[in-house]
Amino acid sequence: MKTETLYTYTHLYQFALSVFEKMGCSNEDATLATSVLLSADLRGIDSHGIARLVGYVRLWEVGRINVHPKISIVYETPSTAVVDGDRGLGLIVAPKAMQIAIDKAKQVGTGWVSVKNSNHFGIAAYHAMMALHEQMIGMAMTNASALVAPTYAAEKLLGTNPIAVAIPAAEQAPFVADFATTTAANGKLEIAQRKNEKIPYGWAQDENGLPTQDAHILKKGGALLPLGSEKELGSHKGYALGSIVDIFSGVLSGASFGPWAPPFPAYVPMPENMPGEGLGHFMGAMRIDAFRPATEFTNNMDLWLNRFRNAIPVEGQEKVYVAGDIERIYEAERMKNGIPLVNEVVDGLNELSTKFKIDF
Amino acid sequence: MKTETLYTYTHLYQFALSVFEKMGCSNEDATLATSVLLSADLRGIDSHGIARLVGYVRLWEVGRINVHPKISIVYETPSTAVVDGDRGLGLIVAPKAMQIAIDKAKQVGTGWVSVKNSNHFGIAAYHAMMALHEQMIGMAMTNASALVAPTYAAEKLLGTNPIAVAIPAAEQAPFVADFATTTAANGKLEIAQRKNEKIPYGWAQDENGLPTQDAHILKKGGALLPLGSEKELGSHKGYALGSIVDIFSGVLSGASFGPWAPPFPAYVPMPENMPGEGLGHFMGAMRIDAFRPATEFTNNMDLWLNRFRNAIPVEGQEKVYVAGDIERIYEAERMKNGIPLVNEVVDGLNELSTKFKIDF
Repeated sequence: MKTETLYTYTHLYQFALSVFEKMGCSNEDATLATSVLLSADLRGIDSHGIARLVGYVRLWEVGRINVHPKISIVYETPSTAVVDGDRGLGLIVAPKAMQIAIDKAKQVGTGWVSVKNSNHFGIAAYHAMMALHEQMIGMAMTNASALVAPTYAAEKLLGTNPIAVAIPAAEQAPFVADFATTTAANGKLEIAQRKNEKIPYGWAQDENGLPTQDAHILKKGGALLPLGSEKELGSHKGYALGSIVDIFSGVLSGASFGPWAPPFPAYVPMPENMPGEGLGHFMGAMRIDAFRPATEFTNNMDLWLNRFRNAIPVEGQEKVYVAGDIERIYEAERMKNGIPLVNEVVDGLNELSTKFKIDF
Repeated sequence: MKTETLYTYTHLYQFALSVFEKMGCSNEDATLATSVLLSADLRGIDSHGIARLVGYVRLWEVGRINVHPKISIVYETPSTAVVDGDRGLGLIVAPKAMQIAIDKAKQVGTGWVSVKNSNHFGIAAYHAMMALHEQMIGMAMTNASALVAPTYAAEKLLGTNPIAVAIPAAEQAPFVADFATTTAANGKLEIAQRKNEKIPYGWAQDENGLPTQDAHILKKGGALLPLGSEKELGSHKGYALGSIVDIFSGVLSGASFGPWAPPFPAYVPMPENMPGEGLGHFMGAMRIDAFRPATEFTNNMDLWLNRFRNAIPVEGQEKVYVAGDIERIYEAERMKNGIPLVNEVVDGLNELSTKFKIDF
């Protein structure tokens, strides 16, 4: 039984572009959304790539995505802004907000943009990495619907709330961290579900807060665990990190937050008494030459990266990686050999092909 | 066998103040250093409080602390600065750098200060919390001497590199996170050493990168583990976080970094070929009204904090805490009933009492 099929980047790109255009996005917006979406597939973050295209379409069908958003700054200072995403695709809202952060950094050294009224923004790394071309450090984070129980809690109050930080270097490949503030991202549970496998202890808890290996536990009142898994191993730190992402993305912007963050699946009803508008993001850009001459910084980064990449590995491991290295390997390999899609994802794309009368 | 003695805050404050003055600090600097140092004891972070006073004195004795530092801005933009700590006590350098961040935030919305040529700065929370009185979000982080092995590495390349974030609210007590980016702080290993106890798996690895329960393992070529403990439980995320703190504190400022960060114990020789000057910190301040009207933000924070503080606890736990809650309980209790010091710490203070001819 063949469970994966390889598709070229160009093939998937053309298809996703056409879907966004059929939804009513301008060619410019559809191009941007497609680039953000497919950057996930290229980098090996399969849960956030074209596998989600069906989900975005469903959100649009239930009226939760505005394909002609007026994305605007509603509040600002020289180094900050709040952007209203006007219910646009996060895939479009987020890079536009990041560009505002970059423009502010050009003026006053750093730029910080909190975003409300947005939707799922793809992978955080895409937005953070926009800063690399400008000799800036980039940051991106987002809140998300509540799947995570705080330390000691028997209920889900936080999303997987990822953080991305991209840092340029000179000759060395850049540092690009992008991680959920949970022990495991929800996508990893989905993979275990498809394979009918158990998950490791430490990823999730059951409805009573007890350890579990059931990959389906979220549908049974269970929850993902913050990075650290349990108190003794520092889960209160992962919980704090997820909280910070929620507050910077949601509370600072006027988006919804905590257990009131809007869910991604279109069939899940919106929370009652939402305290803000839509999903929230937080973007940052810092000009490296706002701190010291750029070449001094990038040369020291080369020294840093070279030292860590050549660290002595433990027995059984070939090498020590720096954040972003593995994704960079994926990107080169998949751009060359294609992107593997599992049957379920292919089925979803075939549905879209029928729905929109686009060849797949 | 009595192993702990209670001392009043005032008693310890007067003693530490006198020690800093005997080292040659001005009364103003000694007052600031004492306030920062003792905030750790009050908040229950015993490893970073007066227990370290002997260590600061030893650094001064070997010429690594300048008690008359000219703390200066060496590079700046409207929202950023690099501060040269001139080898001063981090306890003094860090709050002065934080004040610069706050002043910049008043002008342009946010302020970001990277610090070089500094020393151990006490608890990160003290500095981050300075922003609370200004209706700002405060952030503080620092690099530290290398005790932590990156994921898959058999050598120590990062410090415990803590991050603090303080966020104001209206009626509710503020959110104050302060955590090492490791599974357990080094202070927890020291406690296990004193009690001759094993440590849990997940805190440290031995010289070959294998799991260990030996609290003395750092002296035997072992290392602390990044938050997440092992790859399957997300240690690459804790490793990325510790890296970000190192780069923001060290590389951005021109301080030393990674395996070349200066050690705290005065008897440990300085690393060879240090790429920068001293230890580094990174401070940030964001005016909440640079994003939205302050009362809108603080009212939403009250809603956030109230929801999380009243989350349903798992069986066996009384309640769910928000970052900073436990430290706040300690602070009230210890201010009232006194600060417990273990015999070893008392012995160290008695040594200082003799050395400087100050009553203890």
